[in-house]
Amino acid sequence: MNSFTGFSAPRADRYFEDYQAGAVYEFPETALVSEEDIIRFAKEFDSQYFHIDPVAAAHSVYKGLIASGGHTVALAFRLYIRNFLPEKASLGSPGMDEVRWLKPVRPADALRIRATIIETRPSQSKNDRGSVRTFVETINQQHEVVMIFTITNIMARHP
Amino acid sequence: MNSFTGFSAPRADRYFEDYQAGAVYEFPETALVSEEDIIRFAKEFDSQYFHIDPVAAAHSVYKGLIASGGHTVALAFRLYIRNFLPEKASLGSPGMDEVRWLKPVRPADALRIRATIIETRPSQSKNDRGSVRTFVETINQQHEVVMIFTITNIMARHP
Repeated sequence: MNSFTGFSAPRADRYFEDYQAGAVYEFPETALVSEEDIIRFAKEFDSQYFHIDPVAAAHSVYKGLIASGGHTVALAFRLYIRNFLPEKASLGSPGMDEVRWLKPVRPADALRIRATIIETRPSQSKNDRGSVRTFVETINQQHEVVMIFTITNIMARHP
Repeated sequence: MNSFTGFSAPRADRYFEDYQAGAVYEFPETALVSEEDIIRFAKEFDSQYFHIDPVAAAHSVYKGLIASGGHTVALAFRLYIRNFLPEKASLGSPGMDEVRWLKPVRPADALRIRATIIETRPSQSKNDRGSVRTFVETINQQHEVVMIFTITNIMARHP
């Protein structure tokens, strides 16, 4: 198993060919989650009381304010896109599977990701691109995996 | 098949027992997506050029600016939480499956959701709660399904 902290090519020069099944990336970049960020995101998208009201949240099953699951997905996307995906060669994603929120994300958590490439496949119908399927773990500062998902990305092949 | 535009009980009075497998809900509330919203969300979470730069996006495979997939998930969550989930009885979600971004979401789109309850199951280990599994379709103003996912929610039983 090949383990890396980054790619040799910068995002702008990365293509489908730079992604190899079995490679594991642990990027040092973290996403810091503040109470203010949690409440702001939740007021716009997920106004459940345990995401917006610290006092009421203290009496919930979570015993304190936690980030919306949508917020944790968005933060993982930020780390995944900035560190893993190619720039020009990224052609979008058809979907993701098995999203699991395993542990609450709380104010002052620092999240990072580990990305394991499961499979790469040249397109059958379009010979200028391929798809890359990746298992993404989101990990907090206590080394606990707080969320997992598997995502597929379409990428242009090297011209 | 039972089809509804809302629940008879308001969110505050809804419990696990109010959710029945087979019921289909089409809520009238829409989420309007502006170019400004798309760019603001993307600058924070998904800075791929086809989400933040209208000129460059026009030359992309999408032929114009499109919302981040994470943004579409967050908007669907907003509609789902405000219309479908109970208030006090909502105990969070362990995860979601088969998220598929089927069509681009573009500036000025008005999104709504259709929620179909697939399965409800009382907890085996905790007799005060149960889980509800729901298939959620996000639909634009042209009646096109732009995204689907299946989500599980834990809900308190009626006291």
